[in-house]
Amino acid sequence: MEKLWTENLRDIEPYVPGEQSSDKDIIKLNANENPYPPSPESLEVMKKFDIAELRKYPNANSTPLKAALADYYNVDIKNVFVGNGSDDVIAIAFQALFNSELPIVYPDLTYSFYPVWCRLFNIPFKTYPVNHDFRINPDDYREKNGGVVIPNPNAPTSIGEGLDFVRKIMDYNRDSVVIIDEAYVDFGGISSIPLISEYENLLVTGTFSKSRSLAGLRIGFAIGSERLVSVLEAVKNSYNSYTVDSLSIEIGRASVLDDEYFKETCRKIINTRQHVTEELRALGFVLPDSSANFLFVTHDKLSMKEMFEYLKEKKVFIRYFDVPRIDNYVRITIGTDDEMDVLLKEIRGYIDYVKA
Amino acid sequence: MEKLWTENLRDIEPYVPGEQSSDKDIIKLNANENPYPPSPESLEVMKKFDIAELRKYPNANSTPLKAALADYYNVDIKNVFVGNGSDDVIAIAFQALFNSELPIVYPDLTYSFYPVWCRLFNIPFKTYPVNHDFRINPDDYREKNGGVVIPNPNAPTSIGEGLDFVRKIMDYNRDSVVIIDEAYVDFGGISSIPLISEYENLLVTGTFSKSRSLAGLRIGFAIGSERLVSVLEAVKNSYNSYTVDSLSIEIGRASVLDDEYFKETCRKIINTRQHVTEELRALGFVLPDSSANFLFVTHDKLSMKEMFEYLKEKKVFIRYFDVPRIDNYVRITIGTDDEMDVLLKEIRGYIDYVKA
Repeated sequence: MEKLWTENLRDIEPYVPGEQSSDKDIIKLNANENPYPPSPESLEVMKKFDIAELRKYPNANSTPLKAALADYYNVDIKNVFVGNGSDDVIAIAFQALFNSELPIVYPDLTYSFYPVWCRLFNIPFKTYPVNHDFRINPDDYREKNGGVVIPNPNAPTSIGEGLDFVRKIMDYNRDSVVIIDEAYVDFGGISSIPLISEYENLLVTGTFSKSRSLAGLRIGFAIGSERLVSVLEAVKNSYNSYTVDSLSIEIGRASVLDDEYFKETCRKIINTRQHVTEELRALGFVLPDSSANFLFVTHDKLSMKEMFEYLKEKKVFIRYFDVPRIDNYVRITIGTDDEMDVLLKEIRGYIDYVKA
Repeated sequence: MEKLWTENLRDIEPYVPGEQSSDKDIIKLNANENPYPPSPESLEVMKKFDIAELRKYPNANSTPLKAALADYYNVDIKNVFVGNGSDDVIAIAFQALFNSELPIVYPDLTYSFYPVWCRLFNIPFKTYPVNHDFRINPDDYREKNGGVVIPNPNAPTSIGEGLDFVRKIMDYNRDSVVIIDEAYVDFGGISSIPLISEYENLLVTGTFSKSRSLAGLRIGFAIGSERLVSVLEAVKNSYNSYTVDSLSIEIGRASVLDDEYFKETCRKIINTRQHVTEELRALGFVLPDSSANFLFVTHDKLSMKEMFEYLKEKKVFIRYFDVPRIDNYVRITIGTDDEMDVLLKEIRGYIDYVKA
C-alpha cells in the first residue's frame, strides 16, 4: 500500500534533458552550443578574481551585469532583469506575467519547454500551427488570450521575422503580455528591444548561452518596461534572492564589454552558415534561410532519421525530432568550418551509402 | 486607467534582500557568512579550469558534485539532489513535496523565507510558537498537517537539537514529508542524514554558503530517499535543466574533497564562538549556547536596537530583527578572532556610552 505522505508529492512527468557526451572525439552539433570559446576577457576576469570573495553572497541585484546590459542595449537599469540562464528567466516570466484563466498562445513548432512550464505552473495554453513554410502567421494571434510567447528567430525552424511582424503581434495584443524569446537573435535576427519604449506589455528575453559562448555559466536576461521588470523581480526575490553567482556576474559583464570579439564570432558563424546552406542545397537538401546558429534541414528522397543515426555512428551528433509534421527534419548546429567540413563529408558518405 | 494586460501580473509583495555593503572597512557580521576563504583547492580548480569549456552546457545532472556528496555522506548518488543555493533547493522542495490542502507547519521564530515560499506557491501554513527559552517543542508537531519544515540548528535562535528530537518529529509525522533544514549544522549541530534510511519521508537540506565559504557560488543540496529525490528532480527539470553551473560543480566538488580544511575552519569558528559567548556573558548579556556560526543575544538592561545602531556607526554590522518576541535581540555572526575583538571593544564602548 502506498504510504499517505506520498499523496502530497507533486505528480509531474519528468522532463529528461538532452543527452550529453564527454567523448572528446565527438563533433557535437546537437545542442546549439557555440563552437568558439568565450571572450578572452573572461579568462582575465577568472585570473584576477579573488577567490576569498566567494565566502560572501553575490550582489543580490547583479548590478554590475545589469549595468553593462543597460548600457549595451541603451535602456535604463530598471528595464533589465537577469537570471540563472534564460530558462530561469522565462520560467519566472511565465509565473509572474501569465496569471489568466485564458490560455496563453504560441506556435505549435517551437521551444519544447513552453508546455513544460505551463504544466508546472498550471497555466492553460493553446498553440497555433505555423504555415506550411514554417512561418508564423501573425493574424492567428488576434484571439483574446492570457499571454503570448514567440521565439524570434524561432526554433527549430531557424526562421526570423522583422519588426513589422512583431508590431502586428503587439497591436493585436494590447491586453496581454507578449514575450519575444530572442535566444538566437544575435546570428542575424532583428531584435525587438527598441520597441519596449513603445509597448509597456512587451518583454524581450535573451541568453548568454549561444552567441556569448557561456552556456556553462547560466546567464539569461530580459528587457522590458519598468512595470514588467518590477513584477519579475518580486517573484524572483520571493523564490531565491541570489540566482546569479559572483563569477557569472563578472564574467558575463566582461563578455558584454568585449563587443569586438562578440561581433567577430557571430560573423564567423553567419559566414559558415551561409557556406553550409549552399553546400546542402547543392546536395538536394531543402532548408529555410536561417537567422540562427543552426539549420533546419530535410530532403525529399532521404530519411533524416536514418541520416541522423548514420552520422551518430560516425561520431557527428545532430538533432532529430520524432514529432509530427517535422519527422523528416533534422536540426544541425553551426560549428567551426572544420567541423562542418567533416559533417558535409559524412553526409556525402551517407548519400553514397544509400545509393549503393 | 490601468491597462487590461496588468490584470494578469502576479500581485506579490516584493521581498527585499538584506542590505549588502562593498565598503571594505566594514566588519560584516550580519549575513552569517564565513570569515575564512574557501578551500585552497578551489583556487587550483579555477586555475586549471579550461575557459573554453564554458561554451558548453553544464552536466545536467551535476554528477561530479553529487558523487562527491554521496561519498561524503555515505549514501547513494540517487539520494542526492543539488541546486542553485539551498534557497533554490528548499523552494523546489516546497513546490514538489507540499501539495496538500492542510497547512504545512514550522516554528514561529525561524527562517524568514518559509512564509515567502508558501505565499509564492499558495501553500497554506501554520506556525507553532517556540518555548520561552526559544526551544522547539516536538509535541506541538502531532497535529495532522500538510508537511513539516524545521531548521536544525534553528535561526535566528542558534539552538540545535539532537536525534531524539528529530525521531520524535518523524514518529509523529508518518503521513507527512518532513524537511530538516541543516544550513548551520556543520558548526557543532547533529545531522539527521543518517536517519534517511529509516524514514523515507525525511528530506535533509544543506548549503555550501556557510561552512564551506562558498555563498558567492550558490550551491545547495538535499539528501533523502530515492522517492523524494526523484520528485525533486522531476520538478527541477520542468523548471530549468541546468541550475548548477560548470564552475560551481567543480569548485563545490573540490570543497567536499578537502575535508581537512573544512573541519579546521569549522573548528576555528566554534572556538571563536565559545570565547565570544563567555565574554558576552561576562558583560551581562544573555544568550543560548549556539550550535551555529552566529549568536542570538539579548541584555536585560540594554536596548539591542540602540546597540545595533551604535555598532553600525562604528562600522560593525550585526543583525537586528524588528519582530515581536525578539525585538530586544540581535544576531551576531562569528567572524575571525580579530573581528570579534573589535566587536567586543565596540560593545564595551557602547556600555560605557550608555552609562555616561
